[in-house]
Order: sequence, then C-alpha cells, then structure tokens
Amino acid sequence: LDYQHVQVPFEITLWIMLASLAKIGFHLYNKLPSVVPESCLLIFVGLIMGGIIYGLNDKSPPVMDSDIFFLYLLPPIVLDAGYFMPSRPFFENIGTILLYAVVGTIWNVFGIVFSLYGICQVKAFHLQDVSLLHNLLFGSLIAAVDPVAVLAVFEEIHVNEKLHILVFGESLLNDAVTVVLYKLFRSFCEMPTIQSVDVLAGVGKFFVVGLGGVLVGLIFGMTAAFTTRFTKDIRVIEPLFVFLYSYLSYLTAEMFHLSGIVAIIACAMGMKRYVEANISLKSHTTVKYFMKMWSSVSDTLIFIFLGVSTIGENHEWNWPYICFTVIFCLVWRALGVLVLTFFVNRFHVNTITSKDQFIIAYGGLRGAICFSLVFLLPDFHRKKLFIAATTVVILFTVFVQGMTIRPLVDLLAVKRKRESAPTVGEQIHIRFLDHLLAGIEDISGHWGQYYWKDKLEYFNSKYLQKILLREYDQPKSSIVLLYEKLERKHAIELAEAGQLGHGPSHPSLLHNDRTVVTDRKLEHTLNPDVLENIQEILTRNLYRIRRMGPAYNRHTLPGETEPVEHAKEILILRHKSL
Amino acid sequence: LDYQHVQVPFEITLWIMLASLAKIGFHLYNKLPSVVPESCLLIFVGLIMGGIIYGLNDKSPPVMDSDIFFLYLLPPIVLDAGYFMPSRPFFENIGTILLYAVVGTIWNVFGIVFSLYGICQVKAFHLQDVSLLHNLLFGSLIAAVDPVAVLAVFEEIHVNEKLHILVFGESLLNDAVTVVLYKLFRSFCEMPTIQSVDVLAGVGKFFVVGLGGVLVGLIFGMTAAFTTRFTKDIRVIEPLFVFLYSYLSYLTAEMFHLSGIVAIIACAMGMKRYVEANISLKSHTTVKYFMKMWSSVSDTLIFIFLGVSTIGENHEWNWPYICFTVIFCLVWRALGVLVLTFFVNRFHVNTITSKDQFIIAYGGLRGAICFSLVFLLPDFHRKKLFIAATTVVILFTVFVQGMTIRPLVDLLAVKRKRESAPTVGEQIHIRFLDHLLAGIEDISGHWGQYYWKDKLEYFNSKYLQKILLREYDQPKSSIVLLYEKLERKHAIELAEAGQLGHGPSHPSLLHNDRTVVTDRKLEHTLNPDVLENIQEILTRNLYRIRRMGPAYNRHTLPGETEPVEHAKEILILRHKSL
Repeated sequence: LDYQHVQVPFEITLWIMLASLAKIGFHLYNKLPSVVPESCLLIFVGLIMGGIIYGLNDKSPPVMDSDIFFLYLLPPIVLDAGYFMPSRPFFENIGTILLYAVVGTIWNVFGIVFSLYGICQVKAFHLQDVSLLHNLLFGSLIAAVDPVAVLAVFEEIHVNEKLHILVFGESLLNDAVTVVLYKLFRSFCEMPTIQSVDVLAGVGKFFVVGLGGVLVGLIFGMTAAFTTRFTKDIRVIEPLFVFLYSYLSYLTAEMFHLSGIVAIIACAMGMKRYVEANISLKSHTTVKYFMKMWSSVSDTLIFIFLGVSTIGENHEWNWPYICFTVIFCLVWRALGVLVLTFFVNRFHVNTITSKDQFIIAYGGLRGAICFSLVFLLPDFHRKKLFIAATTVVILFTVFVQGMTIRPLVDLLAVKRKRESAPTVGEQIHIRFLDHLLAGIEDISGHWGQYYWKDKLEYFNSKYLQKILLREYDQPKSSIVLLYEKLERKHAIELAEAGQLGHGPSHPSLLHNDRTVVTDRKLEHTLNPDVLENIQEILTRNLYRIRRMGPAYNRHTLPGETEPVEHAKEILILRHKSL
Repeated sequence: LDYQHVQVPFEITLWIMLASLAKIGFHLYNKLPSVVPESCLLIFVGLIMGGIIYGLNDKSPPVMDSDIFFLYLLPPIVLDAGYFMPSRPFFENIGTILLYAVVGTIWNVFGIVFSLYGICQVKAFHLQDVSLLHNLLFGSLIAAVDPVAVLAVFEEIHVNEKLHILVFGESLLNDAVTVVLYKLFRSFCEMPTIQSVDVLAGVGKFFVVGLGGVLVGLIFGMTAAFTTRFTKDIRVIEPLFVFLYSYLSYLTAEMFHLSGIVAIIACAMGMKRYVEANISLKSHTTVKYFMKMWSSVSDTLIFIFLGVSTIGENHEWNWPYICFTVIFCLVWRALGVLVLTFFVNRFHVNTITSKDQFIIAYGGLRGAICFSLVFLLPDFHRKKLFIAATTVVILFTVFVQGMTIRPLVDLLAVKRKRESAPTVGEQIHIRFLDHLLAGIEDISGHWGQYYWKDKLEYFNSKYLQKILLREYDQPKSSIVLLYEKLERKHAIELAEAGQLGHGPSHPSLLHNDRTVVTDRKLEHTLNPDVLENIQEILTRNLYRIRRMGPAYNRHTLPGETEPVEHAKEILILRHKSL
C-alpha cells in the first residue's frame, strides 16, 4: 500500500465525491430541499463530518485553507454567476446596486464597528482590550454580504428579477469594498502611526481596485473572444479558453491586489456574447454545463467545509460580543437599506417597495468569504473571539434567515419571478421602446442610460464585432437555415425568370428582413430552444434595422440611409411576387 | 505585486494556455498537420521553450515531474482511450492483443536487455560498469510501447480498425507488464541476493497486477453506473461522476501497486453502457466533449514537456550504447511481431497480413511513460546515460517513425478505415450472425467467444441492468417518442372502437416490435444523430427479441415463448387494421 503517493489527488477526489453524493442524497427526498435550503443541509453534513473527525482524532479538524478557498473554490462560482448574469436588469439597476455595494457596505462597516467598539467599553463584558483597529478589521470582513450564500438561497426562492439582481449584484460588487477596507485596516495594524494621507489613499484605492478589476476582466474577456475566432478547425479545445481566460483574469487581478471577483465578472460578461457566436453549439453546451457543474461542486464543498471548520477549539465564546455582533449586523443593514432606498426611490420612477426593502435587508447573508478572511487575520490574542463571532453570524444568517426567508416571501406575497419567458411580441416591444428612448435622449441631448447603450452598441457593431467575431456569422437556428435555403431557391427562380434584374440576391438582404419574416412564422414554433434562438437573432437584427433605418440621429445625413431604401424596395417587390 | 500567492495556479494555467495556443497555431496552417504529426510539432515547441529557459537561466529547465505525469496528465488520456474504445474489435482481438502485450513485451525486454548487456562487455565502449540488473531496469522501461505516442500518431493515419486496435490495445495493456517488471527489478536492485523464489513471485505478480487492475476498474465502474441511477433530479453533476469514479479507480489501483491504466480502462468500458443510458443527453455531450478536451490538453502538455525536459545537462552521450539501444528496440520488436504473428495466424481464420505486421512493428512508438520512469530510477552513476538513451529512442520513434509512417501506409496501400459507418442492414446482419454463431456454439458445446458473449449478455440483462439502470428506460430518440405517441393514440382509438379486446395496450408491447417498425421508417431519416440513436436502440432491442424469441437454447421450455406469440398476434392484428 502506497498511500502518500496518491494522497493529494485521492483526498481531493474523495471530498468532491462526498459533496456530490450529499447533493444526490438530498434530492432523493423531494420534501427536504423544499423546506430547508441546500446550504443548511450541507453545513449540517459538514458539522457531522467535523464531529466525526474531532471525535476520532481528538483534535480540531483542519480548517478550510484560505488559499484553497480564494484560488480554487470561489472562482468557479463567480464565473458561473458572471456568465449567466442577466445583463439587462443588471445594467438597468447598476446605479442602485453600486450604491448598496459601496455606500451600503461602508455604512455597515462603520455602523457595526463603532457600535461594537461601544460594547467593548462596557466593563462587565471584559472586552476592553479589543482595540478600535481590531474592531475595524473585524467589521470590514463581517459587514459584506456573501455572494455564495446569497446565490444558494435566492436561487431557490424565485423572487422577481429586480429584487434578485439587487441583492445578488450587491453581494458580488461589494468585494471591491471589502478587499480595500480589509487590506487598508490590515496595513494600519502594522503601521506605527496612521496619518490622514493613508486614509485618503485608502479612499482612492476604491476606484483603483474596482475599476482596475473591470479593466483586467475586460482585457482578458476580449482576448478570449479574439482567440475563439481561430478555433474553427479544433473545436474540441474551445470550451477550455472560456475557463482559462476567466481564471487568468481572476488570478491577475488578485496578483495586482485588485478585485478578482469584479475582474472575473467583467471578463465573463464581456466575452459571453462573442464567444457564443464563435464557438460551436456543442462547445457551448459543454461550457454552460461544465460551468454549472463546477460552481455547483465548489458551492457544495464550501458549505461542507464551513461545517467541518466550525467544529473544534478555535473559538472564544464571549457571548455578549457575539450576540451584539449578530444584532448589529441585522440592525445596521436594515437601517442602511431603508436610508439608501429612500434616496433611490426619490430619483427613480420604478420604486423599490417596502416588501422588497425587507427582503433586501433580510437577504444579507454572510458566508464563506468572511470565514476565510477571519482566519487570515494577523495573530493576536483575541482572534479566536472573532472566529467565534464570525461563525455564529454565518450560521445564524444561513440557518435562521436562510430557512425563514422562503416562508416570509410567501407570507408577504413578494412579487415572484414570472414563470414564462417573455414572448417575442414583448421582446419586440421592449426593444422598440429602447430605440425610442435612445432617440428621445439623443434629440433632447440627455446622456442617459439609453444613450450610452446606443453608443456602446454602435461601437460594438462598428469595431468590436469585426475584430472579435469570425467573419461568417452563421445563424444557428435550423428554421432560419431552412428559410434561407428556400429563399435562395426562390431567388434563383426569380433570377431565371428575369424578374430580379440587377438588384442584389435575396439571401444577402435577408440579414435585414429576416426578423420580419421570422415573426410571421412564430405561431408555428413552440419548441423553447428554437424560440430562444429566434429571440437571439431578433436581439441582434432588430438592432441592425434601427441602425440602418431612417435615423433620428442628428449626425446622420439623409444620403446614408440609401441602402435601406433599396432593401425596402426589393422587399416590397418580393412580397408582390409572392 | 503578489506573485507567489497565485504562482501555482497561474503557472499551470499559463502552461495549459501555451499548449492550447500552440494547437490552434498548427491548425491555422492546414498544410503543416498533414505532413508532420502534431506530436512532433509539440515536442519541437517544447524544445524551443526549453532552449529559451536554458538560455535565460543558464541551468537545465525543470524536467517533467513523474508524479505530475502519472497522477494528473496520464489518467485523462487513458480515460478517453478507454471510454471511446471500440469494444467489438477490442474483444474480438483480445487474445492477440494480450499475446502482443504480455509475451511480446517480455520478449522485447529480455531481447533488448541481453543484447545491450552483450554490448556492455565490449571493452572499447567503456560500459563494463553497467550491470545486468541496471540493464534489466532500463530494458523494462524502454521496451514498452507508449499509448500516448501511439494514439497521437495512429489517430492521424486512419489505418483499418483491426490494425489500430492491435497496436493501441497492446500499448495500453502492456502497462501491467511494465509495472511488474520495473518494480520487480527495482526491488532486486535493493536486495542483497536474489533467490529463485523472488523470480517466481514476480511471475505471479503479473496476474495480480493485471487482473487486480481489471477488478478495481470494474468495481468502480459498476459503482459509477449505480450512482447515476439516482441523479435524475440533479442532472448538473452527472458528468462529474464519470470523471470522479474513473479517477478514483486509477488512484486506487496505483495505491495498491496494481496497473492504473488497466483499471481506468476497465472502469470506463464497464460503466459506459449504463452511464449513457442513465444520464441525460446533454450530460453525455458534456462528458464526451470534456473527456476529449481534457485528453487533448494532457496530450499536448506531455509532448511540450517532453521537449522542454530534453534540453539540459542531464545526459551522458555514450553513442554506442544509445545507437545500439535504438537498433535493438527496432530489431527485437520486428522479430517479436513476426514470431508472435506466426502463431496467431495459425490459430485464426482472419489472418494478419505481412503489411499489417510491418505497421505493427513500425508503430511501436515510445513516449512519455518511459521518460517519466527513467527519471524515477534509483540514483547511480550512469543514470544520465539511461536518460540520454531514453530521450534519443523517444525522439527517434516519434520523429522518424512518426513522420514516415503515413507515407509508408500510403506506399504499402495498407487497408484503411472505412469512411462511412456500417449501415443498419449490415448491423442487423452482423448481429444475426452473432446469434447464429452463439447458437451453433451452444449446440456444439464449444465454449467460444460467442458463447461467452451470449452468457455475459444474459447476465447483463438479467441482473446488472436491473441494478444499474434507472427503471424507466426511456428512449432518447425523438422519432421513437413520436412513434410511441402516435401508437398510443391509435391504441386508444382501437380500444374505443372495441377492436383491441382484452389484450395489452400497444405501447407496452412496443419494446418488442419497435425495431421492426423503426426499420421501415429508416428511408426517411438521414440525420446522422437520429440514425445513431436508432442503431443504438437496435443494438439493445434486437437482442431482446432474440432472448424472447423461440430459442435455440437447450434450456428454454416452449411455454416460455408464449408472450412473444401473443405480441405477434397483436402485431398482425395491427397490420390488418392499418
């Protein structure tokens, strides 16, 4: 028997196996997952495992290594989150999300820290030796909402899209704030004196860390898209690039002390559109499936490890401090949400209801990120107190809040996610309104959301697509292919009969009027995959029509619309001939 | 900048990226891969990389770690090989393959070793200090054909299926022999005296290592199949089990000093059939795609590392020894193939032609396995000589033989792989002959290949399938689903008209006559995916008919065929009603 030779991969494989089997186990009993969130069950399995290890070895089970967590377990989950992020609601609410993520987190940190510092001054609690700086360090890690925990719970309760994106977006983007505050206070710990310059530099760092992360992510995302242009002859390694480049973006950001989470999200959101157009359908299935699988395993492992690491002798149970931490976390978050939403509602038409506010405040779950960070704290004599407080806060939020949020959502009748996908009619309508609003913003000279979206789309179609997409942009839907084939046949017939004249052949014009014709055919298609494809094509091509149509753009000359007129004429000709 | 924090994953990712980009690079120039095998190009890239590292650091670049190779790079390739192994030609030629793999490898080892030992006695070569035992160690690692190198070259030249499986099967199964001989001689190195008992124990080990590997593999394979029975509600982690269990089988086998390669092949071949039936179509696409991707990346990395590791100062260039090693490798392999094939051809109807023999002998490429093993040799003063000899043999076989084998295959007009898949008619014919032969063997009391296959199939359908498959065995093909739906509708109509009587409903009988009806529909289907599905269903169900049909089995009573008669009657009734 030669165990140490294979020990590392063997134990990793066994842990993953345990995680997967635990997942299967829960789903065998249909009732269990509908009452208790999976994350709770997994922590419970972890607790049992930890108890067994503790009982057998009579020493604390190994805690989750922070390096393993940040380098190997977290990236797949964030990649999955970024890749499948619904971009429309995300960008529509980006202002609110950033407000919650940046201002809200800072509010929480300082609220919790100064209240806790106040508690530390009470002599009866024996906490006078916990300095303000240590409290600041603790506050910076305990204040941030955890994306893994939020995702695990919110994926199961199906609240409406806006509410989901607000909580989830906040949990992702507050990483930049957490990183900055945590590192700032850590460096303060090591400094003899703190000057006001250092504090100012800290504020400047927010922007560097956040925007730097976005930049790194976008660079890697664009490179990934560019690389997949050349994989036509070697389809089998296409999915690899999606994973490699996003992981590299994360590692590079971490290397430069930027926000890795922000980087990987920017990378995934940036590349998605181009990569999807470049790679084959099977590669894309593999990418999607593997991403889901990987994040699901990571997620499972994280919760199991959370449970395992809880058992042991790493804790100092000073209950006043711990209880007040839980209370302050809840209170300050609730206050923060109320105050910030008040301002948001004043400037937005689409207000956040008080029910939504309650769920946002209540959904502020803490998870494995703070757990990993608390073990990374510099050693000092009350570190075990912080570990105990963090553990209790995580268990409280995941178990109590996680288990009661679903009944509360039912009780409050919070608006749910709509079950069906939007119909094509709705999609066209939404898009029509987008264009209308972009036009209105353009005419009125207001540089709003639609104006920028319009500009970005223009930049995309004019430059980015040409560089990043393979030249032959073939539609994937079989119905469109069939239609093109029929059209080509028809065009040849027309040409043979001499009716077409010297105009361009129909198929080359189809890129413009495909959408119109597809729409007519829609009543006959019910297959959701095909429908999705059609919607994707609509998404792309409706825009093209607007770009080529008679513009309400101040910078377009009438002469530029000529090809569209030409296309229209031929379209009319074609309709007549039919 | 915090590089060492992310160093490990960053460098791994960069190496994989380099490998993938190199692969894309070759395929951009279509002419290159058609002349030079990819493995040569990759070694070349590795040589350049190694040269750069050597030039910059002025010391030898790091050699490929044997642990990394055996634990992380080799398993994906072997898994891919085992999973996509064409089982029919493999089992048809299993005797010949085993003969080549076991007897042939032993022949090669001892042939090469004693010839080299003879060379060592020549005073002019200054090799008298290389003992017989050291030669034996060297021989045991240099004699074995390498599956990775063989796969890389033979996948590109498309020889006929039998020839391919003979060379490839040998390269996979000789692992057991290599492991035994290598470990035996290593332990001899450390023993003060060698007794004849030790040699006998070594011979016994062959069976333990080989059959033990098969056993470990089958146990894990069956467990994997059993696990996928329960993944219906959690499709997303299905692909994971295929990878986890096969990797565990490899690691477990390695842990017990059994043949990991044999174990993973047995695991993959054992589970494939059941896993495919249990998991969803998308999961299966992911499994297939990811396996190909992973093995492709591993393969690329191995060849690049081979190139990198070649550069440096690890070599002792004693040219007589090196040249004679190359010559003896070629000569003894050629002799071995000739002698063994002589015996094979005497006992088989389907003979191996002299052209095939030449390609088998010439296709005996060496690769990364011997390279990793030579670095694992115990330290002694002429280890560098062995490293040099191994490097030259690998480069010679991969470059010279690998690059000339394609022109030689063309020149000799070796029978190629047929381009098209066998038609359904052919498949039915082959299967019919199988049953006929099984019947003949059964009647004549000859326990041949078909008899055992029949028994295995019986055991499978009677016990294994019941345990390992989910109970509702739904066909995946949409055409069959549609057909069942139409049938069900028809049955309801018949029932309403009172024509059906008290017979069982049609759909429940469809399992028996589905094949007949599907065949009639075949002319209308051209989609290869659908065709493949149909062929799969045929494969399963034609057997079922034979099992349920009036048997040429001595142990079946006439009464047992009653349900078939019943089904037939209803089929006739149905045909009339149509």
